[in-house]
Amino acid sequence: MKHFTSIQDVANPNDLIAPALEIKKTPYSTSQLGMHKTLGLIFFNSSLRTRLSTQKAAQNLGMDVIVMNVSSDGWALEMEDGTVMNGNTAEHIKEAAAVMGQYCDILGVRTFAGLKDRKYDYEEVILNKFKQYANCPILSLESATLHPLQSLADMVTIQELKPNNKSVKSWTRPKVVLTWAPHPKALPQAVANSFCEWITKQDVEFVLTHPENYELAESFSGNAKIEYNQNKAFENADFIYAKNWSSYHNYGQVLSNDESWMITKEKMSFTNNAKFMHCLPVRRNVVVSDDVIDSNNSIVIQQAGNRVFAAQAVLKELLKSIEKNGQ
Amino acid sequence: MKHFTSIQDVANPNDLIAPALEIKKTPYSTSQLGMHKTLGLIFFNSSLRTRLSTQKAAQNLGMDVIVMNVSSDGWALEMEDGTVMNGNTAEHIKEAAAVMGQYCDILGVRTFAGLKDRKYDYEEVILNKFKQYANCPILSLESATLHPLQSLADMVTIQELKPNNKSVKSWTRPKVVLTWAPHPKALPQAVANSFCEWITKQDVEFVLTHPENYELAESFSGNAKIEYNQNKAFENADFIYAKNWSSYHNYGQVLSNDESWMITKEKMSFTNNAKFMHCLPVRRNVVVSDDVIDSNNSIVIQQAGNRVFAAQAVLKELLKSIEKNGQ
Amino acid sequence: MKHFTSIQDVANPNDLIAPALEIKKTPYSTSQLGMHKTLGLIFFNSSLRTRLSTQKAAQNLGMDVIVMNVSSDGWALEMEDGTVMNGNTAEHIKEAAAVMGQYCDILGVRTFAGLKDRKYDYEEVILNKFKQYANCPILSLESATLHPLQSLADMVTIQELKPNNKSVKSWTRPKVVLTWAPHPKALPQAVANSFCEWITKQDVEFVLTHPENYELAESFSGNAKIEYNQNKAFENADFIYAKNWSSYHNYGQVLSNDESWMITKEKMSFTNNAKFMHCLPVRRNVVVSDDVIDSNNSIVIQQAGNRVFAAQAVLKELLKSIEKNGQ
Repeated sequence: MKHFTSIQDVANPNDLIAPALEIKKTPYSTSQLGMHKTLGLIFFNSSLRTRLSTQKAAQNLGMDVIVMNVSSDGWALEMEDGTVMNGNTAEHIKEAAAVMGQYCDILGVRTFAGLKDRKYDYEEVILNKFKQYANCPILSLESATLHPLQSLADMVTIQELKPNNKSVKSWTRPKVVLTWAPHPKALPQAVANSFCEWITKQDVEFVLTHPENYELAESFSGNAKIEYNQNKAFENADFIYAKNWSSYHNYGQVLSNDESWMITKEKMSFTNNAKFMHCLPVRRNVVVSDDVIDSNNSIVIQQAGNRVFAAQAVLKELLKSIEKNGQ
Repeated sequence: MKHFTSIQDVANPNDLIAPALEIKKTPYSTSQLGMHKTLGLIFFNSSLRTRLSTQKAAQNLGMDVIVMNVSSDGWALEMEDGTVMNGNTAEHIKEAAAVMGQYCDILGVRTFAGLKDRKYDYEEVILNKFKQYANCPILSLESATLHPLQSLADMVTIQELKPNNKSVKSWTRPKVVLTWAPHPKALPQAVANSFCEWITKQDVEFVLTHPENYELAESFSGNAKIEYNQNKAFENADFIYAKNWSSYHNYGQVLSNDESWMITKEKMSFTNNAKFMHCLPVRRNVVVSDDVIDSNNSIVIQQAGNRVFAAQAVLKELLKSIEKNGQ
Repeated sequence: MKHFTSIQDVANPNDLIAPALEIKKTPYSTSQLGMHKTLGLIFFNSSLRTRLSTQKAAQNLGMDVIVMNVSSDGWALEMEDGTVMNGNTAEHIKEAAAVMGQYCDILGVRTFAGLKDRKYDYEEVILNKFKQYANCPILSLESATLHPLQSLADMVTIQELKPNNKSVKSWTRPKVVLTWAPHPKALPQAVANSFCEWITKQDVEFVLTHPENYELAESFSGNAKIEYNQNKAFENADFIYAKNWSSYHNYGQVLSNDESWMITKEKMSFTNNAKFMHCLPVRRNVVVSDDVIDSNNSIVIQQAGNRVFAAQAVLKELLKSIEKNGQ
């Protein structure tokens, strides 16, 4: 595995999911693997879980970690080629990425969609510039269109819960629902896109539910079954994954704030006693009601906890590939 | 010791004071104790000494440290229960604290009083939410009403200086004065409250001096002797501890900027050649005159230096209690 | 070596240049040297390369690193002596530096010229206050007038390239040109001053070229040969080092934006197939054209990479001097 920026970088997702669950049992069993290796975490945007869990994962592997918040610690970077840089940008990504790549053995990059220009966002300009110029493995800490570390943790969490429920018949092939939920702000599609990419590779029944006109990019949601009736989608579900996103087709727009899409106790009652998942941060009583997220069926904290082991499994593979290349 | 958020968490203060002075002699003697343990330092407010000294203390113990400035690295957190979160807060403290607690073995939290709502501040909402939801030991890095790491360092410093002055009779039971001093801004009562809590457990003569109407909360200052005449309070003092605070009763108000309360050479002349203490940062020539803080009697730098060993003694105890609980 | 704030601190520059190149071959050969030693990196201003490369260098030596952005993590510091601090500054540099120096074994300090008051900037007030009060070795991470870590890396890079070009006659004593280049903003003279200081101690032919009225302070540029005709200066050059600076004599002013001073392919054609150097960040197509910086002759990334080994050589010497002093 050369980079980890989407499921496309991964030969077989199960080669990360099973190891992550192993790592969870003995997180320090390879605490020398990352010795004398530096992970640079480059933040163009805010982060809590990814910031902390990826640091923790790297430290579990014995890596050194350097954190940089680009805009507050440094300066604005130019992304366009050929520009006469007499404006606000002080350094070109070509130099910045190449230099960071020399100082670090692996570079983690966090960059959100601007939600103004779909073509620009979906071309993953910043992430790809890092891939192009940094000359080291790039680890996505969420990019404009995808959040693979989140999705891997999501898969790990679903996998982890399966054996505990062997008695439930449906769980040999659980029904997993990704449902849109309301939100006051326009949010990227990254978590939803990424979840679709990963879950459709798993042996589950996957249903996507959202208001009309909230269709995700087909390149990610692919052949997922869409059910516009949320209540119907929830029927017999084993996992409800809630997430807001702004419109892909009317790019970046909030087309609906329909409160009836909030995940409530009543909605959950249609399910097969489903687990409630969300990537966090979540707005309570907007996306999900208190009684759902505070219920025993809510696994959002366990899910967030698995971010460490997902990141550690990924870092382990990236370290191995560095080793192989004799770096 | 489960948490360290006030003297109430400490069975016997001397079980921290004496060890801190031992640690000062050989700070690296337990540099493996914290191996594979992570300290998260969560800052809701600015910090210099606490930020650096606590990191240093943790590193001396072999811990990994992760630092997070909540507002600049992350986003605004919701503290109220039951809110419909359609406003400025992006994540509820319930999730944030629970998640951070999963990534870290100990969480340090820094949060200042807002000085608008006394009830809210004195309920220590943020700190208590962390205690409630983080499911790991909480280390106060100064909270709305208390600053126990500072007070422990203060006790350590007073203890450290005692033996050097055995010849001075009074020092078998030194006179310690906490004096209010002027300041252009409204400051929290945390350092003063906390100092009262700790010093009243020590075998010293303690006198509190401040202008009328600057009485501290009795729950902290307790049975401390108050002397409204600063000059009289200073008589025969062995330690002068200066600190500004805003009014507790007219909550958060600056009732006086009376320059005559500034600690000057003349004031110090009333004392028994007292040592001058302050928690820092200090505004020179407002709180204390240059000639006092620059004099040989000023021990503010030594006092700040002891912050490392105080923090290390506390972290050591918290690590031990984690060990005991089989975590 | 007690401090590293200018070439004046260095007995013999070659005692750092050759070791840096050795370190580059085996960066982890002394990975225990810095055990239980803490490097504090104190940023009054933005930084990318210096921030990351100095952290990496310290970690290669086994040091602990603590990073502090003064203005965002802490508060404004007072630099003037004797002030009544009832304004915006919350802490005096006397206390801040002394305290930080107690927590750290070496303090790195980054502070830019304000470019308003030449006397103030050239007195290096902040850096010198740290030297005066911190009571530990001070490492300049770029100060108001100098950037010695950059210059050392520059010397290392020139030295590194020499042997590969033995066949080129002139390279036994290469011609090195420091050329002013246009920039939309007023920049400090630090990199240029420092480069002059260091390069004039090397066995090279050094030529300085800039528009009239852009003369650097003689205390740094000394006896350097100035050639106001850039094209002529470039003739037969082996290294072109480009850098903008604002006027020293009309202090901090941008006297020219003359685009004809930009480094272009045509300009480079006058040289002896010269290597192109810049300290970065660089504004493309303002300071240098894309085709020059993207050419094979551009060594800006290699130059930035050498920042790690330059810093590591310096830290090694500072650690040795601490050891010698029995700290």
